[in-house]
Amino acid sequence: MIVRVGLAYDGTGFRGWARNAGQRTVEGVVSDALGRVLGRLPKISVAGRTDAGVHARGQVASFVAEDDVDLERLQRSVNRMLAPEIVAWEVRRATEGFDARFSATARDYRYRIGTGAWPDPFEARFVWHRPGGLAVARMREAARPLLDEHDFASFCRRPQSGGTVRRLERLSIARAGDRVEITARANAFLHQMVRTIVGTLVRVGEGKLDPASVAEILAARDRGRASQLAPAHGLTLERVVFGRRA
Amino acid sequence: MIVRVGLAYDGTGFRGWARNAGQRTVEGVVSDALGRVLGRLPKISVAGRTDAGVHARGQVASFVAEDDVDLERLQRSVNRMLAPEIVAWEVRRATEGFDARFSATARDYRYRIGTGAWPDPFEARFVWHRPGGLAVARMREAARPLLDEHDFASFCRRPQSGGTVRRLERLSIARAGDRVEITARANAFLHQMVRTIVGTLVRVGEGKLDPASVAEILAARDRGRASQLAPAHGLTLERVVFGRRA
Repeated sequence: MIVRVGLAYDGTGFRGWARNAGQRTVEGVVSDALGRVLGRLPKISVAGRTDAGVHARGQVASFVAEDDVDLERLQRSVNRMLAPEIVAWEVRRATEGFDARFSATARDYRYRIGTGAWPDPFEARFVWHRPGGLAVARMREAARPLLDEHDFASFCRRPQSGGTVRRLERLSIARAGDRVEITARANAFLHQMVRTIVGTLVRVGEGKLDPASVAEILAARDRGRASQLAPAHGLTLERVVFGRRA
Repeated sequence: MIVRVGLAYDGTGFRGWARNAGQRTVEGVVSDALGRVLGRLPKISVAGRTDAGVHARGQVASFVAEDDVDLERLQRSVNRMLAPEIVAWEVRRATEGFDARFSATARDYRYRIGTGAWPDPFEARFVWHRPGGLAVARMREAARPLLDEHDFASFCRRPQSGGTVRRLERLSIARAGDRVEITARANAFLHQMVRTIVGTLVRVGEGKLDPASVAEILAARDRGRASQLAPAHGLTLERVVFGRRA
């Protein structure tokens, strides 16, 4: 059977999702824990290959297991080993043909920025503290031309197999008090794409970059043109969408 | 002059507030940082002597400094050394005679309990994960007789100088989804008083203790009668009240 696993994790202590010899990664820790229960290491497919230090609330992974595996027991065992740093909030049998990576039709990421004078000790692990105001209206203006299908080579760290065209379905900027949150939904994201977009929008919000120049950066298809990456710890994979979308 | 300092901290990595040779404590770390700027170690008075692992959002401390100390610079320097684990959100000149401990007229603590099946990785440092429902109405019934002035010896770890009579002004229990929050305000608290009350109320909420027995435990004035301590990491000193109260 195909098993679907919903995962939340604090990415602070991990070198990202992907298993990597000698590194502590989320995939490494999760597949080792599953392997201890299943008796063999599963081959995991994942919807969002989060980078080092990036968090997840609604990550989804899948793997193939024997039909007689007790999934409730598997969930309890894995959480006993990994929680609260990593929590499997769902472990269930998926429909035939399900694959967390290839069945996913969209990913939602949220980037949290704290603009107050001082950081908040209770949220510091998950919020980029960048004191000083941000002109949210300017950021929204700059974000608009990024929506829809484009070649996002300017917002990608390195060339990707399969090209650099993606469809950005949502890019919204919300402010509440000292907090600015940027939410991005795409069919798929390039490596470091959200953090590069956030870094560029923050420059616009600071008044150091003209809103109109973001469309030019996009058109240039040149990574050297975008601004610096926003730090990893502000980013969380919130949700993965499968199949028909509302 | 007397300097008033507002502090927030993640208590996870500290052996409580009070300076203690060979231990990493909040007072130790804060007074060392202040001392590096002031040129001498200040003698700090504090409103809430938080225990090992307990957090604070609205802690207030005070100390005496030379009149010419630049307080803005002092705040920046201290936060540069200590944030985001400890943040001095306020550093200002207090009125004559102010003393954080003796001028405080009440302290507000909040205890957070997560009752869902699995912990939340994003809040695990600040919430006691105790899966399974809690009968909040029973807990409220049990809490009522604790209100007002009593001898709280049954809810105190050890004899205190100055006796064990305190005035509990508020003890409220709120539920929102999988979260139960217990808020306590008193003129002052005994050592481990909030955590002992929470441990006892949770036993009531689980149905293992009759609501009426809490009044009996209070009347017994015997620490052996109360339930186990709730763990430290669910507790946060939220606010200190000074002078006339609303």
